[in-house]
Amino acid sequence: MELIEIIGLVAATLTTSAFVPQVYKTWKHKSTRDISFTMYLAFFVGTMLWLYYGIQHQSLAIILANAITGILVLFMLFLKLIYK
Amino acid sequence: MELIEIIGLVAATLTTSAFVPQVYKTWKHKSTRDISFTMYLAFFVGTMLWLYYGIQHQSLAIILANAITGILVLFMLFLKLIYK
Repeated sequence: MELIEIIGLVAATLTTSAFVPQVYKTWKHKSTRDISFTMYLAFFVGTMLWLYYGIQHQSLAIILANAITGILVLFMLFLKLIYK
Repeated sequence: MELIEIIGLVAATLTTSAFVPQVYKTWKHKSTRDISFTMYLAFFVGTMLWLYYGIQHQSLAIILANAITGILVLFMLFLKLIYK
């Protein structure tokens, strides 16, 4: 695998896993006052469109990254709704 | 342009512009207690790697999306540092 493709995989891993510490923090502190619902809603819709794009292009990297991001972002929306 | 490529552009626009309402909310309320610094730091590094990936692949879509996201995420890191 070329170096630039490894860089792409690291990039995808970072922008996907970045949501884990936010989910953890929100889950632990049960407070979402400073979190924008609109941000996570727009991000979720965008992620679902990326997922469809990945499926159409048969790109496992795009499918995997957006499926995981979608779950994390959906969980943030859920936390935002239950912890006002 | 094929429909699937338009869907890709809409997806990129959504996952990029999603940060705008979060930046606006944080700027307005001057509070970042519920925001994870680690999330934005990981996302920023990931975005910079995507930017490099886009430059190497000469993909204007990847370059544009990640340059804008990078600025918005960097601004969130700045707000997180000044509004504890």
